[in-house]
Parts: sequence; structure tokens; C-alpha cells
Amino acid sequence: MAGVTTLHDPDVRGFASDNYAGVHPEVLAAIAAANGGHQTSYGADVYTARLAQVLAETFAAPVEVYPVFNGTGANVLSLQSMLPRWGAVVCAESAHINTDENAAPERVGGLKLLTVPTADGKLTPELVDRQAWGFGDEHRAQPGVVSITQSTELGTVYAVDEIRAVTDHAHRLGLGVHMDGSRLANAAAALGVPLRTLTTDAGVDVLSLGGTKNGLLGAEAVVVLNPAATTGLTYLRKVDMQLSSKMRFMSAQLLALFDGDLWLRSAGHANAMAMRLYEAVRAIPSVTVTNVPQANAVFAVLPPGVADRLRPRFRFYDWNPATGEVRWMCAFDTTEADVDAFAAAIREETALVA
Amino acid sequence: MAGVTTLHDPDVRGFASDNYAGVHPEVLAAIAAANGGHQTSYGADVYTARLAQVLAETFAAPVEVYPVFNGTGANVLSLQSMLPRWGAVVCAESAHINTDENAAPERVGGLKLLTVPTADGKLTPELVDRQAWGFGDEHRAQPGVVSITQSTELGTVYAVDEIRAVTDHAHRLGLGVHMDGSRLANAAAALGVPLRTLTTDAGVDVLSLGGTKNGLLGAEAVVVLNPAATTGLTYLRKVDMQLSSKMRFMSAQLLALFDGDLWLRSAGHANAMAMRLYEAVRAIPSVTVTNVPQANAVFAVLPPGVADRLRPRFRFYDWNPATGEVRWMCAFDTTEADVDAFAAAIREETALVA
Amino acid sequence: MAGVTTLHDPDVRGFASDNYAGVHPEVLAAIAAANGGHQTSYGADVYTARLAQVLAETFAAPVEVYPVFNGTGANVLSLQSMLPRWGAVVCAESAHINTDENAAPERVGGLKLLTVPTADGKLTPELVDRQAWGFGDEHRAQPGVVSITQSTELGTVYAVDEIRAVTDHAHRLGLGVHMDGSRLANAAAALGVPLRTLTTDAGVDVLSLGGTKNGLLGAEAVVVLNPAATTGLTYLRKVDMQLSSKMRFMSAQLLALFDGDLWLRSAGHANAMAMRLYEAVRAIPSVTVTNVPQANAVFAVLPPGVADRLRPRFRFYDWNPATGEVRWMCAFDTTEADVDAFAAAIREETALVA
Amino acid sequence: MAGVTTLHDPDVRGFASDNYAGVHPEVLAAIAAANGGHQTSYGADVYTARLAQVLAETFAAPVEVYPVFNGTGANVLSLQSMLPRWGAVVCAESAHINTDENAAPERVGGLKLLTVPTADGKLTPELVDRQAWGFGDEHRAQPGVVSITQSTELGTVYAVDEIRAVTDHAHRLGLGVHMDGSRLANAAAALGVPLRTLTTDAGVDVLSLGGTKNGLLGAEAVVVLNPAATTGLTYLRKVDMQLSSKMRFMSAQLLALFDGDLWLRSAGHANAMAMRLYEAVRAIPSVTVTNVPQANAVFAVLPPGVADRLRPRFRFYDWNPATGEVRWMCAFDTTEADVDAFAAAIREETALVA
Repeated sequence: MAGVTTLHDPDVRGFASDNYAGVHPEVLAAIAAANGGHQTSYGADVYTARLAQVLAETFAAPVEVYPVFNGTGANVLSLQSMLPRWGAVVCAESAHINTDENAAPERVGGLKLLTVPTADGKLTPELVDRQAWGFGDEHRAQPGVVSITQSTELGTVYAVDEIRAVTDHAHRLGLGVHMDGSRLANAAAALGVPLRTLTTDAGVDVLSLGGTKNGLLGAEAVVVLNPAATTGLTYLRKVDMQLSSKMRFMSAQLLALFDGDLWLRSAGHANAMAMRLYEAVRAIPSVTVTNVPQANAVFAVLPPGVADRLRPRFRFYDWNPATGEVRWMCAFDTTEADVDAFAAAIREETALVA
Repeated sequence: MAGVTTLHDPDVRGFASDNYAGVHPEVLAAIAAANGGHQTSYGADVYTARLAQVLAETFAAPVEVYPVFNGTGANVLSLQSMLPRWGAVVCAESAHINTDENAAPERVGGLKLLTVPTADGKLTPELVDRQAWGFGDEHRAQPGVVSITQSTELGTVYAVDEIRAVTDHAHRLGLGVHMDGSRLANAAAALGVPLRTLTTDAGVDVLSLGGTKNGLLGAEAVVVLNPAATTGLTYLRKVDMQLSSKMRFMSAQLLALFDGDLWLRSAGHANAMAMRLYEAVRAIPSVTVTNVPQANAVFAVLPPGVADRLRPRFRFYDWNPATGEVRWMCAFDTTEADVDAFAAAIREETALVA
Repeated sequence: MAGVTTLHDPDVRGFASDNYAGVHPEVLAAIAAANGGHQTSYGADVYTARLAQVLAETFAAPVEVYPVFNGTGANVLSLQSMLPRWGAVVCAESAHINTDENAAPERVGGLKLLTVPTADGKLTPELVDRQAWGFGDEHRAQPGVVSITQSTELGTVYAVDEIRAVTDHAHRLGLGVHMDGSRLANAAAALGVPLRTLTTDAGVDVLSLGGTKNGLLGAEAVVVLNPAATTGLTYLRKVDMQLSSKMRFMSAQLLALFDGDLWLRSAGHANAMAMRLYEAVRAIPSVTVTNVPQANAVFAVLPPGVADRLRPRFRFYDWNPATGEVRWMCAFDTTEADVDAFAAAIREETALVA
Repeated sequence: MAGVTTLHDPDVRGFASDNYAGVHPEVLAAIAAANGGHQTSYGADVYTARLAQVLAETFAAPVEVYPVFNGTGANVLSLQSMLPRWGAVVCAESAHINTDENAAPERVGGLKLLTVPTADGKLTPELVDRQAWGFGDEHRAQPGVVSITQSTELGTVYAVDEIRAVTDHAHRLGLGVHMDGSRLANAAAALGVPLRTLTTDAGVDVLSLGGTKNGLLGAEAVVVLNPAATTGLTYLRKVDMQLSSKMRFMSAQLLALFDGDLWLRSAGHANAMAMRLYEAVRAIPSVTVTNVPQANAVFAVLPPGVADRLRPRFRFYDWNPATGEVRWMCAFDTTEADVDAFAAAIREETALVA
């Protein structure tokens, strides 16, 4: 079988992104288990039906579930379903929807982002107020949704009452709340709470539920926790080109993650590896770790030149070229040995430049 | 493993759609072979690099290859990359882009479709001329691309010289040519020609290369055969939310299909099953088979009431409720026994109403 | 005053378009009367308030009135306000929104047009049914509005009961009805009925009320006859760049036309000139007048070569180059002498080629 | 003539906006002079041809001129014509395109705005650099244009070398430069330089040339100073619903302003009135004038309660409710008596609260 070949070294891992990791074996098994025979396409299959049941229990709400292809799709669909054509989204300047989606929210969604600078990536009621104004003024894009990310793009985690403060405030203003939960599992694992505590119970209306960064091949879902907050998602998913024909395999992946505790095992492990890495490098004198990791990311400032010498050995990304800050991400498949080898390499390279 | 369960009967198959079928075992094997370790996300991986090589050979052209999630995505991306903001697409009224994509070409792509009625789903130079006019008139959406489907939505197949006639004519008018090749493999199998004969060699500029309907889990690709015909695909794929993070698994699927002859084996088999079904039912007096199948679809008119009685036994779709025409699709996994059992059922049910 | 100069011959008129005509003197007077002093911008002025009162009386309905810049703006705004993001418009293939707006409904409005061929430019319930189907199918753009043009782009006029048949049918199906009334005045003048008879009383929900083609400098209005049929027009008008800052002058123009009978005098005159032209040329043996004019347009087929010889003397447009059909439009300022001179010229030129 | 009536008091003026003012008498005269007879619609008329000549002289460049309806239209058209579908605009956070156009650049134009906070409304090379990065990264909207406003939304004026610094820097980075010149005349009048000095000679590529705020009824123009910087404006103007049918009257207005020195007389007068107001109120102890007016706007902080007592006598807008700052705009028709009466009223009302 010419097309079935391993072309890479499956023993090489780095710290660049949880998207560099592959598929958890249980997820591959779930895809295989869903294979064979015919199932109605476009979501009218038993796996998608089962997924709705599982997530209704997970989130303790009569959820609507819309599996989609990727996180940008989940975010744009969520926001579009919550807003009229003249609507706007209050979000952090550092939000993925603002920085990493090549303006899909604006271009495909027709939305305006009203951004707020925030040092830790989190919004507060006070920060929301910096953009949530001008209601009824036709010249201003009308704020209709607050979007928060959990865990944030800066590796921080909202406490439950921090989410509740934002959702209460937003609802008082008549705004809905969207959560970009691309790494929600990491936040829940970090806080030691069920997924519902950070979402349904905290007043979130619509959730972009992440899967791919936590060991799926490729599947996310729009999960509607408050059905009154959205309209037309069935149609919008098709319009926005996020409707999978063989959806049973998307749903099977999500079932592998959420019908059981794989989400927690994998995210908890990634978080633990980040903490292990933090503990290993914090003592290196010339390395400044910027944060105590709250989820699966470690941010650090390296001495000049060290990052470039490290990179051939382990992949990772610059975070802020101006300051020399780098980002190290751990994934479900990061091993203790990976962490220890990476920490040793950092120690070696920093020693060489000292 | 709670999430890893088979919830359906893997022995039940029908004739509703090649999207109801699952994943070919070789494709699952290819996904597994690409798993493990870390690979750069968003397409900078070895599988995607290899895919470009394979398709360059397949299409005998220095192709650009952009794996995407689904056929609508491939079509909209292709067309957007070929047209300015004021551009229009000449296509058959029955084209998938016109009838089945909930206006994604218009809404996401900002494109206008200039449609032409055609009984067999195929365009000709004369039919193209019915819409390819008004150049330079700012009031009219400017025709810039002709889009044809191979095999067509009506189950017909363009002969090589029919494609060439359209591409020559389009190019003379200054228009590019896009092919929706969602079922290109079935057409090539039916005609017994290489894929390049129907595309590169026939003057097609940009191809939506289908995979999902031919046994993939979910992967299609925009294949640029004429690089001068497009611009900005790298950016547009992200903007249109068709950029996969763990792209190695999309590319691995496409390699399973095209690095070797799986595409031909699977499509040829589906075609053969359609022909077997045709042969089995054409002799039933009260059944009118509308076409001699050219690819993997059979269209037929059943006596009143028969379709509804058949459906609980075998899934299939109405094609034209006004005339009673139905569509039967065969897939890579349709067996001879499936066909024979279905034909027998048709015979039984028509006998009952006779 | 260097910038204040007449650069053209104000005695030259043709038969090309009612848009070639200038501004009715009473309209200029109304603009001057609204000048001086300060008035709140963007519509919170006394002229716009008065316009709402006048049109409420005209249309015998508690209308909402949104002055806009041009007909394309009025149409796109109307349709967008009546439809969700996944909505579609059933309209004639010959509708202005389909043929002459460079896809602004698709590109700016994000709408899909579901077109129906019709020889006389008019829709009927049966023709509506050819596209009003597929409700609830996410793959199909969802029909939500029927748009009709009165008088049509082909110069025909819907009788009152023809409109009523379409609106009753549309409403039964749950669709709203939009009327492109760019030449509504000509239709009302032709039928000898008040404007409300063709709109409010006939079941139309939203009207694009024309002004520019009937002697205004440049002003149209979206008139909402059924407020339940629209949403967000205040915001959409700004988003779609149709919000005039010095709106008092738009409203003053529309008041000049509709607060009194100028609309009827001007449209009735244009219609009468079209009939005079028809009477003068129908007897010319080699000229085939295609229609008995119902509004202000005459369509005719001239012998080969005649059109090109006539054009240096009088401007007009080809309608169908394939058949030699031409269109002659009369305007509020067309004189009997213009018509007679044009008819004489046609007689001369046809005699020369006979 | 029922529709021709003055409904307002033409002797009442305020300080709310230059859009509250009416039409300069010379402009009305120019409209009347362009009236009568027939002229080809949609811009193929002698007034539009003449306008192109006049603006070519004014800007000392082989300009392309596209009259449009309003400033939002001019801005969105300009930017869209300069950018691909994946393009982004670097602009001040306070730019009109960001704050006052209800996201038309995003929603209609499909553009992303990359905004920079700036205290005086002006960009510098350093501020441009805060957003002009990420070239080639498909995840980031690609910076392609820098847009500056002259005079700015904050009433400040770029010096010639400040513009040059931005355009040089932008061009070095491969970005085009757009100027929102809604109040360009006020800036030129303030600096005592020709219009070309601030535009063509300073390296601006495309200009939104303002007219309405300087005494026109309603007309702006996209003026292309560097034809290599744009594409497709003819089509985009139609698509974006900014194409006037009776364009001769738009062009006649712009000729009234720019074929001669009306633009300078009117803007210079408005500026002088702003300076007179500044001089009159700066000495009032409890009034803090925030700026020395550079164009036709005065910003001041009034003691609590004074603004609300003043407003029934003279209209003006709050600028920053948090600080009590208000904005006073002067127009072409503001008289010395208006200014003196307003200053006296301010003095009275502040004395009452003292």
C-alpha cells in the first residue's frame, strides 16, 4: 500500500504547540469503532446523537451541539449565531479571534471586534465597560457579545468567580457571553473542577469546545448552553463551510474525549508537564520564567542567543521578539523524559553563554 | 474506554450517498502510520510535502496543493482565488455550488453565480456564451471563471474533448476554468484515463480534488494546475476557516488515496456496482431507469408508492419529487450482495403495486 | 464663480433613460427651501419627520421611512432587513437586483437570489413555486422573500390582483414580499390608482420607493409597510453606507415629489409620451413595436442598421443585440416635440434602408 | 406646490457639526447650472469629465476621480481598492473608519483594522510599526495600507513633514497610504498650503476627498493619486452601492468647490471662527480649552452642569462624558455674531454655576 507509510520519526517531540502532537490512541480506536457500514451523513447519525446526550450531562444543560472542523470555525459560528448583522464583540486585544484568525470573524462573520488591552489576557467587568457602550447609536457597531478565552492565550486561567463577574455584568448590559474553550480542559484540570462549573454554572451562553489541541485528529464543537442566545446555527454551519459530511467521525472523536475522562487525563498530564518544566528551569539563574504556569504553557525570557541554539534540538516559538520571551507548550504526549531532556538542554545552552 | 464504542450496525449499507459510507481500511491505516511524535502544524509537515510531490506527478504539473476540510470549502476557495471582488462564475444551474452549498460562494466568497440550464449537467461553449458577456460593464458581475463538475451532479461524465471544448472557449474569452472534482475519480475510472487527462491535459486551471466521497474520513484539496490562475490561496484558506492544524492527517488520507491506485480501485468498484444495479433493474417493467450510469449513480422513476415502501429496507434519496425520480448512489464499500438484495427488493415492491 | 457653469446643451434630450433627465424645477425649489440654518444631521431633522407623515398618509400605513442614496441601496437594504444570514430571495431572472447591481445583493447583502425565467418580467404564484421549496434543508439557501418589480424592467405593469395573488401566495408560504418600486409612480399613473392600492392594500411588506427616475436629483427610500417584516434598518442603512449626513435635502426632494401630486404629473406625462411615441411609430411598416407600452418604455425591433444611424441624432439603448430590439424610455421632461422629431427621424431612417 | 416649503428656521445655527450646516449658495447655483436637458448617466457626462481635469490640476497628478455619496463610501471604496481579500489597514484607534462607520470597512469591505492608540489622532512611523508586522503569516490579517486622517477626528492637523514621514515609512514597508480627507480643506487652509502639498507631494496614494462637511449638499470623491495603488474602482463603486445615476449633479457640486477657491474660502472661514471662539472663551476662568484649534474644532471642558444648560440655546456634542469635555464645530456658515453670542452664553452660564 503505497499511500500508507510513516514518513516521520514518531519519537521526536518538542514544545512548540499542542497542535504539533498527534492523535491519542483511544481517539484512533474510537474512529475505527465508528467505521464500517453506512450512517446518515451531515450529522443525522448515532454518534452525533450520542454526543449530544453526553455533552448534555457534561454541561448539565439541554445543550445544542454542532461539531465543526476547527477552532476558528467554532468561534465564528458561535459569534455569528449570537449577533445581528450590525453586532460587535467585546474581547481582549490578545484574543485568538483578534490575533490569529486572519480576520475570519470580520470577513466571514461580518462582525466587529471591540478590543481591550489586558496584561494577563483576561477581561473584567471594568474592562468590558471600556467597549460596552454606544447602544442605539447607528454609527457604532453594536456591542452584543463578550468573548472570553479559558484558558487564555497567555496561559492564564480565569477563576470561577472571575468568569461569573464577567457574565453577570454582560447579562446586566444585555450582552451574551461566548467562551473560546479551545483549552477549556486544561483550565478545568488546573482548577480541579468539572467542565460545567466553568461554563453553564458560571453563566456562559455559548462555548467553543476544544478537542484538537487535546489529542483529537481534528474536531471542535459549538456547544449552546443557553438556546435563547443563538439563532440559525444549523444553517450557519453549512454557510460557513463547517459542515462535515461524514460527521460520525467527528462525533466519535469528541465522544472519545468527553464520554469518560480522557479530556481530564490528557489535559491534566499536559498541565503537570508544564509545571515540571517550570520547576526544572526556574532555578537556572539566567532564565526568567515569566509566569507560574496555570495550564499547559510556560513563558520564559532566555539570555540572548540561547533560543536560537536550542531550537535545532527542540522546537518552540518566540512569543515576544522584542523582549526575548519564548513560549513552551506541553501536550498530552509530552513525557517526563522530554521535559527533563529539554530542561537539561536549556541548562547547557545557558551555561555556554554565561 | 467509555468513549470507544461501536453504536451502529456495521453491516447495514444503503444507496443514499457515497457520504454515508465510512473510511476505507487503507485510509485508517495511513492515519495511524502518520501518528505519533510531533509534526509542524498547519501544513509544514512531511506528509503535506510528500502529497505535493505525489500530486505533481499525478497531474503532471508543478501543482500547488491546499488540503481543506470539505468540498464546499474547496470550491469556494478555488473560485475566490481566481476572481476579483467583482467577479462571477458561469456554471450549470444544477451545479453543487449553486444548489447545495447554502450560498457559501455568494455569502463567504462574495461571488455571483451566472447559471445556465442544462439537461445533462454539462456545459458547452454555446451554453457558456449565454452568460459570458457584459465584459467591462460595471453594472454586471464580471464573468471570470467557468466552473464544471466532473462527474456531474446528474451522474454524467464529460468526455475529454467536451472538457477541452469548454476550456479552449473559456480561455479565448479570458476566463479561467475550475473543475469541481468531488467525484473526479469516478469519471476517470469510467473513462479509463489518468486523472491528468481530464484536468491538466484538458486545460483545467484549478481543481477541487475530491476524497471524502471516495473513502476518506474527510479531506479534499484545492489543486492549482495553472499557478497564474490564482492568488492568495495560503491566506484565503485561513480566512475561510479551512486551515487544518494537524494537517498531516489530512495529507495522509489523500496520500492513501492518490499515492498508489486506491482512488481507482475504489471509484472503479463503485461505478461497477452502479452498472450492476442498472443491469438488474432495467428489466423490471414498471421501473424506468433514466440513464445508463456513467459513474456511480443510477437515476430511476419508480411507480407511485414504491419508493416509500423501499426506504425502510434501503436508504436512498428522492431526486425529483414532481416526477417520482430517485437517485441510487454506489460507494467504495457497496457489495455485489448489496446490489442484488436491493434489486430483489425493488422487484418485490414493484410487483406488489403492479 | 469658476465652478458654476453650464457645460452642456440643456435643449438636447434623448430616449436612453429616465436617468439621463435632470431635476424637476419644483424639486430644485424644494432643496433651496430646505437650505439655510442648521438642522440635525443623519435624519433627525424636520424634513425627514415630515416625510414620514406624508408617506404614512400616502401608503395608509404606519410606515417606517429610510431615505437612501440610490435604488440598489434601497433594494439591498430592504432585502437584508427582511432576511437572516441564510436567507434567499425569489425573483424574476430579469429583475434589476439580478442583472444590474453587480451582485450587490450577494456581495454586500450576503443574500442568494433564486431566479425564475419569465417572459414579461412578472412573477406568478406558479413561478414563485419553482424556487420556494427546500424549507429546513440546511444545504439550500432558505427562501424568505419574494421580490417583484413594479413597473417591471421589461416595461410591463402588474395589475392589482396580480400583485395580490403573489403576496397571498408568498404569505401563505411564510415569505415576505418586497417591491422594487423604482418606477412605481409610472405603474400607478398607468393604472390610475393611488400608490397605496399597489402596495399596502395589495399586501406588499417592504417597498423600494423610487424618486430619481421621476425627476429627483438623487433620492430613494425604503418604506416599511409592515414593520413586523423587517429588523435593524437603522443600523443596516449605516453599515451599507446609505446614510446621508445632510438628510434634510434627501427628504426635501422626496417631499417635493410625494407631498402633492408631482409624482403623478411627472410619471403620467412620461407614460403619455411613451404612448405618443408608440402611436407614431407603430404604423411604420419596417418597425415592429414589441409591446403596447404600459408605462414609460417602448420596445421595438428596427431593421438592420437603423439603430446605428439613429443614435447620433437621439440617444437610446440596445435591449437585445441578438434580435435587434431597442428600448426607448420617456422621462418627465420629454416633450411632444421630442417625440415627434424622434418618430420623424425613425421614419426617415427606415425609409432610407427600405 | 405642496412639497416645496421651508419647515425650519434658517436663522438658527449651532456648534454641533459641520454636517448640520446646509448648502453653500454657489453650490446650489452650480447644481441649477448643470440642470436641464439630458446627460449620460453613471458618470459619462461633461461635468464628471471636467471634474477629472480640475482635480488633475489641483493635485498635480494624472488622477482617477470617483464621485461617491458619502465619506464612509469613499473610505471603504478606497481601502478595498488598495487591498486583497486578506488585507488589513493600520490606523489610529480614533479614526472615523474605526469608530463611526458601524464597521462598514469590516462588514462591506471585508477588511481588518489594526488600530493604534494615539493621543492626538495622528500616526507616526513608530506607531505604524506597532501594527505593521507579521508579513507572510497566514494567521494574521496582512497589513497593506496605512490610513491617516487630515485634519484628524481630534481637530489636529498633520504638518507636511509628518505626513511625509508616515508615507515614506509605509512605502518602505510595501504599504500604500490612504488619507481620509473629509476635512482636508480645513487642514490646507490652516497650514496655508495647496491641497497637493498635503497629498500628492507628500506621498499619499489614495484620497477620500471631502465635500459635504464643507458646504456641499452631498458629494465626496475617491481621488487616486497613484494609479498603481488601486484596482477595480469602477466595479467596486457599483458593488458598494456608491454609483450615482445622475452623477452630473455630484460632479457639479465638487466643481463648485474645487474649480476655484470656494473650498478655501469656506474652510478658512470655518477655521477662523473656531479661532475666534477659542479666543473668546479661553479667558473664562472655569472653562478649560483643551487645544489651540488647528482647524475648525474647539474642544473644552466645562464646569459640571454648564453643558446641559447651554444646549437648549446652542446645539453641540459631548466628546468625552467621563471628563466633561465637549466639542464645538464651526462651519462655512458660522458667523462672527454666532460665535460672539455663543461665547457670551458660555460666560453667562459658567458665571451662574461659579
